[in-house]
Amino acid sequence: MRKRVTLKDVAQAVGVHVSTVSRALDPKTRHLITPEIADRILKASERLDYRPNAAAYSLKTKRTRTIGVIVPDITNPIFPPIIRGVEDALADQGYFAILANTDGKAGREAAIADTLLWRGVDGLVLASVERHDRLVERLLAEAIPIVTVNRRVEREDIASVVHDDRDGMRRVLAHLADLGHTRIANIAGPQSFSTGRERYEAFESVRAALGLDPDRRLVVFASGFNEDEGERCTAELLDGGVPFTAIVCSNDRLAIGAIAALRQRGLACPDDVSVTGYNDMPMLDRLFPPLTTIRIEQYQAGAMAAELLVEMIEEAPEHRKPRHIVLPVELVVRGSTAPPSPARNAARPKGRGRKAAVSENPAAG
Amino acid sequence: MRKRVTLKDVAQAVGVHVSTVSRALDPKTRHLITPEIADRILKASERLDYRPNAAAYSLKTKRTRTIGVIVPDITNPIFPPIIRGVEDALADQGYFAILANTDGKAGREAAIADTLLWRGVDGLVLASVERHDRLVERLLAEAIPIVTVNRRVEREDIASVVHDDRDGMRRVLAHLADLGHTRIANIAGPQSFSTGRERYEAFESVRAALGLDPDRRLVVFASGFNEDEGERCTAELLDGGVPFTAIVCSNDRLAIGAIAALRQRGLACPDDVSVTGYNDMPMLDRLFPPLTTIRIEQYQAGAMAAELLVEMIEEAPEHRKPRHIVLPVELVVRGSTAPPSPARNAARPKGRGRKAAVSENPAAG
Repeated sequence: MRKRVTLKDVAQAVGVHVSTVSRALDPKTRHLITPEIADRILKASERLDYRPNAAAYSLKTKRTRTIGVIVPDITNPIFPPIIRGVEDALADQGYFAILANTDGKAGREAAIADTLLWRGVDGLVLASVERHDRLVERLLAEAIPIVTVNRRVEREDIASVVHDDRDGMRRVLAHLADLGHTRIANIAGPQSFSTGRERYEAFESVRAALGLDPDRRLVVFASGFNEDEGERCTAELLDGGVPFTAIVCSNDRLAIGAIAALRQRGLACPDDVSVTGYNDMPMLDRLFPPLTTIRIEQYQAGAMAAELLVEMIEEAPEHRKPRHIVLPVELVVRGSTAPPSPARNAARPKGRGRKAAVSENPAAG
Repeated sequence: MRKRVTLKDVAQAVGVHVSTVSRALDPKTRHLITPEIADRILKASERLDYRPNAAAYSLKTKRTRTIGVIVPDITNPIFPPIIRGVEDALADQGYFAILANTDGKAGREAAIADTLLWRGVDGLVLASVERHDRLVERLLAEAIPIVTVNRRVEREDIASVVHDDRDGMRRVLAHLADLGHTRIANIAGPQSFSTGRERYEAFESVRAALGLDPDRRLVVFASGFNEDEGERCTAELLDGGVPFTAIVCSNDRLAIGAIAALRQRGLACPDDVSVTGYNDMPMLDRLFPPLTTIRIEQYQAGAMAAELLVEMIEEAPEHRKPRHIVLPVELVVRGSTAPPSPARNAARPKGRGRKAAVSENPAAG
């Protein structure tokens, strides 16, 4: 490797003291020296291809301008857009991201936290938290700035950027009620995550508010946000024998599993059963049927989390106030939802039309 | 933040010199001191929660144990499993990954390279290279260890881990020929990437070797590996009026676009036209139809690239020899391929059976 050019080399080339070079190269102190000298130093540092050394910078400033980004598993398609948003926003501010996957395993989380702290990261973006999170508790002792993204912990003192899950669920149910559905099943996500919990709670309260059938047997809980659980829960709903004409899923992957399970039983989506997802993962518009879902702004959430974190890092600790940002969501209607079709419906709906669906009396269901 | 515990604190607690603590904590020098003292030091460092500082370590060793991983765009589903493989392998060896997205833009690539070099990364994994790559040329001047993964540059001196594209294409075409297809179209990928180029060249040579119709009008080139281009190229093939019963696509995303384009024209896959992908992205088995494709081991490729890179970093530069690893691939047969169905085929096949398909005479097609 080429010998690294140092501050001293630049100082010698220009004929000034090292500290003058140092001041000239830092935009915050450049005004302390004459423009003409500053100009000569900048030109010389460019000509010599001088690059300050990150390790030396870190020892001096106690900052690494590095952020740890912790996700459960980068291969889960919800995380790449978030990570991309984090990185783009960090790059704009001269920070870099170190990425780590925990697989949700306690041992791995602890090891990652230790390594990131050893590296002296300036702060952490966590896209992996549970409502009551071991890792967050561990990191609190370090007083390191933290922002959670996509999910949040049940603590007001941890900053977060999340999506408006209640509004998302309201939009999904209003859409299905508009189509005429009254018996709507729910594949709820894991309740240990804020997303799973809030979407489920919103499903229950919005379903009641819309006067839809509140049958408890139409709710099944998935143990993970994946296709396998979508299949398993759909089979459970069908085997339960309680009629329904639509399934609201807590995320897109559950919905993809649900549609596959319906197909295995000879049921078509949306002809026999409408299905909705949540998140609007890439490529859903090319699936057959294309999936009706809630679009959340994962990229924007990541970018905002990074901006929030850099703000916290650059503020004095005593001025840090954890902020909580809730981003708006949008309903994307595609081909997986349609009016209920009583004649063809093998899930045995009661065949009532739209009027009953928006009835004010839940008992009517 | 808690005051950081230093080597000096540990030394004072045990009553030894700082250099003794330093030796005891490094597995490579621990044998230089008595086991009893080493044991007391290890216990004290644990009790005090001592963590060496990464910046100090870097200045001393000139190593950061950090690797730059450069991808075009992490939201492209082929990259997360590669990145995951890189990270898991690095973690096993005490290295960490800094991730950067270039979007294939020259300006962004240059800025990222500069920043990573400033950070003092020990090496780079590039998952983004073109056959003739600006960024690689730029990095060569730095003599920093590089491994390319998934794609390679046309230089023997740059280490690489890629997949056996020729064998993959051979398996796809043999499968389609076995089903009885003789007129097979190809949506080739961008020729500036080794993957696009090698799959296209293999398509041509294997098609000839199998005695399939070598009609040049059945090959269309995509300008990107995405669904939009899959749709556009399929429309071009259909508008060309040259009959075919199958489309071999250079990756899965092109295939998803192709199936959507067929559907728009009222053609069904595989009833009217069989379609194959390449890569075996996640979730293809849940699509309708589930996609026949070539499975490449992205995770393993990432892990091997990381191992190769760490080997290169830890070797003396004069012993570094760029290695080239080619990983085996596998055909995954799913629902998007079936025997040609002349009666229903709106793409106007010539309706010949399997015998003609495997004829030794290309002119017979």
